[in-house]
Amino acid sequence: MAVTSLEDLDLDPAFALHRGGKMEIRSTVPVRDADDLSLAYTPGVARVCTAIAETPELANDYTWVSNVVAVVSDGTAVLGLGDIGPAAAMPVMEGKALLFKQFGGVDSVPICLDCTDVDELVETVVRLAPSFGGINLEDISAPRCFEVEARLRERLDIPVFHDDQHGTAIVTLAALTNAARLTGRPLSELRAVVAGAGASGVAVSRILLEAGIGDICVSDSRGVLYSGREGMNSFKEALAFDTNRSGNTGSTEEALAGADVFVGLSGSTVSEDAIASMAPGSIVFALSNPDPEIHPVAARRHAAVVATGRSDFPNQINNVLAFPGVFRGAFDVRASTITENMKVAAANALAAVVGDDLSADYVIPSPFDARVAPAVAGAVAEQARLDGVARI
Amino acid sequence: MAVTSLEDLDLDPAFALHRGGKMEIRSTVPVRDADDLSLAYTPGVARVCTAIAETPELANDYTWVSNVVAVVSDGTAVLGLGDIGPAAAMPVMEGKALLFKQFGGVDSVPICLDCTDVDELVETVVRLAPSFGGINLEDISAPRCFEVEARLRERLDIPVFHDDQHGTAIVTLAALTNAARLTGRPLSELRAVVAGAGASGVAVSRILLEAGIGDICVSDSRGVLYSGREGMNSFKEALAFDTNRSGNTGSTEEALAGADVFVGLSGSTVSEDAIASMAPGSIVFALSNPDPEIHPVAARRHAAVVATGRSDFPNQINNVLAFPGVFRGAFDVRASTITENMKVAAANALAAVVGDDLSADYVIPSPFDARVAPAVAGAVAEQARLDGVARI
Repeated sequence: MAVTSLEDLDLDPAFALHRGGKMEIRSTVPVRDADDLSLAYTPGVARVCTAIAETPELANDYTWVSNVVAVVSDGTAVLGLGDIGPAAAMPVMEGKALLFKQFGGVDSVPICLDCTDVDELVETVVRLAPSFGGINLEDISAPRCFEVEARLRERLDIPVFHDDQHGTAIVTLAALTNAARLTGRPLSELRAVVAGAGASGVAVSRILLEAGIGDICVSDSRGVLYSGREGMNSFKEALAFDTNRSGNTGSTEEALAGADVFVGLSGSTVSEDAIASMAPGSIVFALSNPDPEIHPVAARRHAAVVATGRSDFPNQINNVLAFPGVFRGAFDVRASTITENMKVAAANALAAVVGDDLSADYVIPSPFDARVAPAVAGAVAEQARLDGVARI
Repeated sequence: MAVTSLEDLDLDPAFALHRGGKMEIRSTVPVRDADDLSLAYTPGVARVCTAIAETPELANDYTWVSNVVAVVSDGTAVLGLGDIGPAAAMPVMEGKALLFKQFGGVDSVPICLDCTDVDELVETVVRLAPSFGGINLEDISAPRCFEVEARLRERLDIPVFHDDQHGTAIVTLAALTNAARLTGRPLSELRAVVAGAGASGVAVSRILLEAGIGDICVSDSRGVLYSGREGMNSFKEALAFDTNRSGNTGSTEEALAGADVFVGLSGSTVSEDAIASMAPGSIVFALSNPDPEIHPVAARRHAAVVATGRSDFPNQINNVLAFPGVFRGAFDVRASTITENMKVAAANALAAVVGDDLSADYVIPSPFDARVAPAVAGAVAEQARLDGVARI
């Protein structure tokens, strides 16, 4: 880019807002004089350090750690921009940190790492872990993200959550639960097609299976995943094994014929004809950003419910509906992990916020609905207790 | 420790103040509605990310990175407590973060690492570096701290500063400069004894040599360092080579006979007799905390100037006089490193704050003197320009 001046860049309000960054550190205790200093720093602090050295759990009570999430990225799959590297990923991670705080009261530090090797990512986060109460993985490309998350979950006794997977999965399940209710069918009778087998496609498929969806076809750029198809990574193979009971082997659009649900997480497009070929009362979630797989107005000509990832159309599937409440709830009970049940509980709580106001244009709450995060947090904390992973 | 209840612990005001930690994250931009969200997060943030990917320097203007220091420790040498581990070190690192903000306007994130191997520490910090504008190493035991710092300085193009070394060195040099002025002698005519050859002892010795001290003896628990002494690590060998022109081979106390300056950084004691054996007009900095090498009242019976690390006696040698201003100045000009000249410039600026008010009980300003950080920052920034390491 031929950089003009910063003043020219700042004519774009997004640049003007980002000037100097979007966040800061603040003290929560006074440091006005030598007496304050002798408590917050030496010599007083030594007594607190000694107590934690003797009783490690006290770190949760006497440091900020138990309320802080590390938002960790390697910058390899940032928004729809792809592999732009750790420095360029920082504005997204700062944004995430703001949302954690604003919606969940969760402090958060953006950590953009200059490494992409799975072993290095895992070891680095394990070494960082004493400084944080939870790890939110972000914008790490598939399939590495699956292994990074799985290994960190095994190594650490704090919540590890890959938001691109599970945040999207929770909000999608919530919206689908409400869409199914609106159209009068249980999930178990629905056949879904999920376009996209990256981080979000895999996680959405998994949570739909967990929630008891009737059948599900997952597709990538080469068409539907089926057992025995060549050239699939191990995550796609496992997914092919667990899905596609109807035995599709064709394209995404072919699979849509007679299907009840379409979930687009692919960055590609589907034709209006393919949407028209779905079963009556169909549900279309065209979630790619900024360009949905099909324009929502076109989809709505055929479908009973349409959702997108955009704020300028009804039914925005936005991860911010999930992650602040999920970590708030996990932190409130010092959960050692986030279980599958806790994710489903988050989705159910999120769906329930809509309540009696349910309509085709309102299957999911607004990100600014103040009821959302407390509802999600409460359900996650309660489920953590039921699952035996709560520590207070 | 048989933990009683948190309520019982909180009867100690240091615990009460630490409850819930000492810091938080704050947003510096509004996120009130969908319009704000579309600038601070998607889709607006994507334009900022793209610009940084194309022109990496823009990360300094459009993220918080260029004003953020990572306070990195492995918890191996925390205060006088020793190797208490990363979790128990956190209250100290949070305290440091508060002081960075309060005195330097520098944001700071405490990072306590669960590794102690030099290679692992170096690699971990290198991977973290895209998230920070500078690295403040803290409470890492000697001699590993020297190699960690040296390798990070070589690998990174942002300031790397081991405060236990250089913060102490800067403040000690400032106080000694003023004490020498008060007693009417140039540094070049003084013979100093530095007790302690750990992080601070080595760094203080190095900066005194840099500043042109007449002669200097450094001692460890086995006595004075001299070339050819057995069992010294490579850092002590190098120091022995550069010091001790008078050829001492005995104890710290023996070396003090006739010396002009004592700097205690050893955690041990010296007798009043040894202090009495120093040259007339002697300068005694008994800096071990919380117990100085000699009680300042006893030292003052023989010495012209006495300083300690404690706030309850005159002349407190406190690192907070240096590190906030050093990083403020380095950040103000986006310095790529902190040179030896910049440290000496910081010491000179700090000494100059005392000005005409110089007295035996006032050779160094108070940590709460509002003139200190701006003076240090200005001198550091100016010297960075002179040294060719400023980038704006």
